[in-house]
Amino acid sequence: MKIIITAGGTSEYIDKVRKITNSSSGKLGSIIANNILISNLFTDIYYIHTPNSFLPNTTISSTTQIHNIEIINTNDLKIAVETLLKTEKIDWFIHSMAVSDYYVDFVTTASLLEEDLKDNNITNIIKDPINKLDNSDKLSSNEDNLVLVLKQTPKIISLIKKLSPNTHLVGFKLLENITEDYLISIATKLMEKNNCDYVVANDLKNIKQGQHKAILIDNYQNKTYLNTKEEIAQELIKVIQRTSN
Amino acid sequence: MKIIITAGGTSEYIDKVRKITNSSSGKLGSIIANNILISNLFTDIYYIHTPNSFLPNTTISSTTQIHNIEIINTNDLKIAVETLLKTEKIDWFIHSMAVSDYYVDFVTTASLLEEDLKDNNITNIIKDPINKLDNSDKLSSNEDNLVLVLKQTPKIISLIKKLSPNTHLVGFKLLENITEDYLISIATKLMEKNNCDYVVANDLKNIKQGQHKAILIDNYQNKTYLNTKEEIAQELIKVIQRTSN
Repeated sequence: MKIIITAGGTSEYIDKVRKITNSSSGKLGSIIANNILISNLFTDIYYIHTPNSFLPNTTISSTTQIHNIEIINTNDLKIAVETLLKTEKIDWFIHSMAVSDYYVDFVTTASLLEEDLKDNNITNIIKDPINKLDNSDKLSSNEDNLVLVLKQTPKIISLIKKLSPNTHLVGFKLLENITEDYLISIATKLMEKNNCDYVVANDLKNIKQGQHKAILIDNYQNKTYLNTKEEIAQELIKVIQRTSN
Repeated sequence: MKIIITAGGTSEYIDKVRKITNSSSGKLGSIIANNILISNLFTDIYYIHTPNSFLPNTTISSTTQIHNIEIINTNDLKIAVETLLKTEKIDWFIHSMAVSDYYVDFVTTASLLEEDLKDNNITNIIKDPINKLDNSDKLSSNEDNLVLVLKQTPKIISLIKKLSPNTHLVGFKLLENITEDYLISIATKLMEKNNCDYVVANDLKNIKQGQHKAILIDNYQNKTYLNTKEEIAQELIKVIQRTSN
């Protein structure tokens, strides 16, 4: 069997030196990968990660081969995922990476917007501006203000079952400071929309030093409550073992 | 003698999980700190760094004590610098950190801007909006667009000589893909504006694996051409030794 694990947080460039990043250490992904290595259930792990992410522990003795694939932004991730799903038979996909929801479409200023507003309304300008700053190099540090217009990135998770219907898919939903019922309802929507087999639902407020509370939900709405990254990883191994028997 | 070295790149939060970061590894700052340790010229290094920055090598045998101070955004840096300059006699300040030029003032959308534009012009809205999104938690991932309005951060380098006129100040100027003459003229402006004693001027195009071309400029316009991070660090040590004798 072969597995893809994604870990870390993608970044979207504003200009040559500034970027928008998602705070994610990739620690959970690396612990899942370590448990996969120990289990010897797979021949190959494709570990797609961002530059500062934790990596799998290569000193673990295992029959599994690790392939580390480094990416930066959502578009890189899309290409890596499409390439692997089209060329390899992937049995499992654990998508723990925090993927940017938005990319930087263009950069402008109040005075450039004022210029554009002479001929058009703001909705059309945000869609397709006439004036904007050139952000292919480093933007000036001396503008009074910068206006960044962000648009939605493609949802990578939605591609997986379309490209590879037989891959078992584990999605992740991280929200902030909400009720458990609401977290479960949003995680279930993610599952239904993207045809996930499992979703790990968690709330930022329950992720602290040594603690990582999460709910593993399957598509019969069974729920398993977990308390640490290690427990999440071990529960996923159990699920993989059960499904493979 | 006591020295402050800043290293890494600051981040400014967009919301609870997304931030704008400056790509800077802090490697140059850590190599400068290592050479300071080897030189035994100082009793204390205050090493102000960001979370993912390289740190000084603590296995170097030295009579110098290192104090690592971790900060995230420009405001943190301001507080750390002010605190140290007001409480300690700092002889040297090597400011190699990539500091955010802009912070996120507020987040809005095309439709909220449309609302605001009924009563006001864009310049006033950018200054002080009526409608905006609440970014104290995690922003929704389902907006068609997000409009981020950035404003200038305070220039930390300008505070140093004001707070501590006798501190020797080394500034850094990083630009992208420009002529050497233009780089020198901009670096000289930085020096004059902030009363630097030295500026390290460099161009992103000349920073590659194993290479880091830079020009060390003093305030008599003497120029020293350097080719690697190690050379930059060693030249700074020479300058410190010359000045202390």
